[in-house]
Amino acid sequence: MDRYLVISSDGHAGLPPERYRDYLEARHHALFDETVQKEIKAREEHEKRFLIDDFNTKWRARVGDGLEGAWDGTIRNRVMDGDGVAAEVLFPDGITERNAPPFGADIGLRPNAERAELQWAGARAHNRWLAEFCRDDPHRRIGLAVIPALYDLDETMKEIRWAADNGLKGVFFPALTDGYDMYNHTKYHKVWAMLQEANLPLHFHSGAAPAYDTTQPGWIGTYLCEFAFWMTRPLWGLTFGGVFEEFPRLKVCFTEAGGEFWFPWIKQLMDIRASAKHTSGKLGDYYANMSMKPSEYFARNVWIGCSALPDEETTQSYYDIGIDRILWGTDYPHPEGTWPNTAEKMFDSLGGLPEDDIQRMLGTNALEVYDLDEKALWDIAARIGPKRESLVKQAAE
Amino acid sequence: MDRYLVISSDGHAGLPPERYRDYLEARHHALFDETVQKEIKAREEHEKRFLIDDFNTKWRARVGDGLEGAWDGTIRNRVMDGDGVAAEVLFPDGITERNAPPFGADIGLRPNAERAELQWAGARAHNRWLAEFCRDDPHRRIGLAVIPALYDLDETMKEIRWAADNGLKGVFFPALTDGYDMYNHTKYHKVWAMLQEANLPLHFHSGAAPAYDTTQPGWIGTYLCEFAFWMTRPLWGLTFGGVFEEFPRLKVCFTEAGGEFWFPWIKQLMDIRASAKHTSGKLGDYYANMSMKPSEYFARNVWIGCSALPDEETTQSYYDIGIDRILWGTDYPHPEGTWPNTAEKMFDSLGGLPEDDIQRMLGTNALEVYDLDEKALWDIAARIGPKRESLVKQAAE
Repeated sequence: MDRYLVISSDGHAGLPPERYRDYLEARHHALFDETVQKEIKAREEHEKRFLIDDFNTKWRARVGDGLEGAWDGTIRNRVMDGDGVAAEVLFPDGITERNAPPFGADIGLRPNAERAELQWAGARAHNRWLAEFCRDDPHRRIGLAVIPALYDLDETMKEIRWAADNGLKGVFFPALTDGYDMYNHTKYHKVWAMLQEANLPLHFHSGAAPAYDTTQPGWIGTYLCEFAFWMTRPLWGLTFGGVFEEFPRLKVCFTEAGGEFWFPWIKQLMDIRASAKHTSGKLGDYYANMSMKPSEYFARNVWIGCSALPDEETTQSYYDIGIDRILWGTDYPHPEGTWPNTAEKMFDSLGGLPEDDIQRMLGTNALEVYDLDEKALWDIAARIGPKRESLVKQAAE
Repeated sequence: MDRYLVISSDGHAGLPPERYRDYLEARHHALFDETVQKEIKAREEHEKRFLIDDFNTKWRARVGDGLEGAWDGTIRNRVMDGDGVAAEVLFPDGITERNAPPFGADIGLRPNAERAELQWAGARAHNRWLAEFCRDDPHRRIGLAVIPALYDLDETMKEIRWAADNGLKGVFFPALTDGYDMYNHTKYHKVWAMLQEANLPLHFHSGAAPAYDTTQPGWIGTYLCEFAFWMTRPLWGLTFGGVFEEFPRLKVCFTEAGGEFWFPWIKQLMDIRASAKHTSGKLGDYYANMSMKPSEYFARNVWIGCSALPDEETTQSYYDIGIDRILWGTDYPHPEGTWPNTAEKMFDSLGGLPEDDIQRMLGTNALEVYDLDEKALWDIAARIGPKRESLVKQAAE
């Protein structure tokens, strides 16, 4: 085989907001009609403070209708073919400031007691649309159900069951638990048992953070310094809570931590915290429920979705994290992703590494995470995958 | 001079709780009388879940009345002489689960709208006692005023002024801002201006964190993985908020991050976040208010109080942070500190390094941070400081 199999761990898909109406339970239509334009406008206003308009406008002009692959399967497959991507993991929020599911069931998923029921309704609307979208091309589309898990575990279990029955391949949970029980709480064990049994990997994705005062200087820099923390916080709760000990086949993916140097640190941090003898002497035998080191659970239960890589050299980070933990991704159609320069960026971040390592990170690791039709994917890769020679680095380069 | 000058960056002092009554405004006495025993009991109960009783009991038996140096100046000086410590920075909370100022004005300082006034009263009671304690031996005791800064800036400015007028040498602010304005907010500029002008360094100390469910497995491991984050969060707000740009002589100390590997990471993280061109292209020119790299502000405005070091090798971390940023500390009288084995632990963490580097970290850096009588301190060091030869490492070791 002279081509790589590429499975992007980080894709975003979603309808234009007004079209979610068709997937929303009728009892929420009145409120939806009343609020959808306001939600769109608020999102645009927020994004104006957040994104450089000029940057976005230029970028959009250049990529043309490719953005509409966020909800249009034909366009999406055209883009994927061009990028050499055989299949994609699909999170919500197609185009950053558009295409978000209604009522806060978006990539910034965060519990909000006041609109718990609405957030669930928004999540279900997205999940129902996404299941259709994935059914249209089940090999290439690895859909994740949006699960506002913290309010109600019965509802959570029901929706996970629905997702599994309807061809979705994983779940996306809120990383911020705010006032709700954190993921080390034993009440979640039945959820972990179900995810393990159904082979549905649990996903956290960067984005959510506590509210910032966007009128103040430095709030974006503050966000950039800590967004990886907010996404990763569930990791040590699960690890030290003994969840990976109890559920050895539970799979957890952390996606788009923007600069993968973060996870080598965190892996090291957890091991240090589990071994600082003097401190633990004071603090008690808190890891009695763990038979392995945190980094050993990490090497078995955790995968890192790597996309939106910074300019800096990250090759060593892949090895520090573990080549078999890395799931490369494009983040299509977000502007910080690789598209429409995927081939070039793939070369920048992977070119010159051993072919086996490249293949693991680009695609075969994902085969181990998700329940996929390998034969079908290799057939697609044979047609559109990047040529192996394209990632060979000449001595001169 | 054949001895080192040692100034510990991390000491704790506080009265037995019931004795704070004498320093508390009379209008709070009734409530104090009603709650002080409950506060003591609640603290003991909490610590029982948190600390290994056996560990603490044994440790206490070994150290004897040395613990009472938390409030007894004669005992404290005896311990300091034995440890070779000429002077100490004094945070609240003498003995971990005792000696905390009332009404939450303790080392876990965290805003709480419902008892803002009481927390201020507790802080003022501590500050008034501490000012007395420091006046008894003004060269050796570098007292920090507890400032529950977030509620009311007029009150904050008034107390800072009081602290400066009464011989205190720095301030201790809450690291967690919870719902209150974060430290990048420009409303704090007048506070920074006052601290800069009065040469009162701003301190954050580890301890505070969001509430955990202490009935659940893994909560201590969770706390250990993130307590350094909670303490350090103000750093990127101040940096990216342009505070160090605006107040180039403002000094900020972060104390007891338990394993100093944390700060080399954070310094690197901030620089990466300030230079990730593609992401900043999307996110805007958020560092327009900074003329230097975050690590350059760090090298000018920030010091790291290093105590409670883990067993792991940390020498390289000192150099990664910057030898001129390190303020060595004993954490006396906390059980995770160096006392009563200070000489041995000092040797473990510093032995064999160049003498000039050792002297900077042990004491002369602190001379640059605080307004101190250098001559008086060198005289004390000449009498009780550790011998320089004690930190020489033989080739055989």
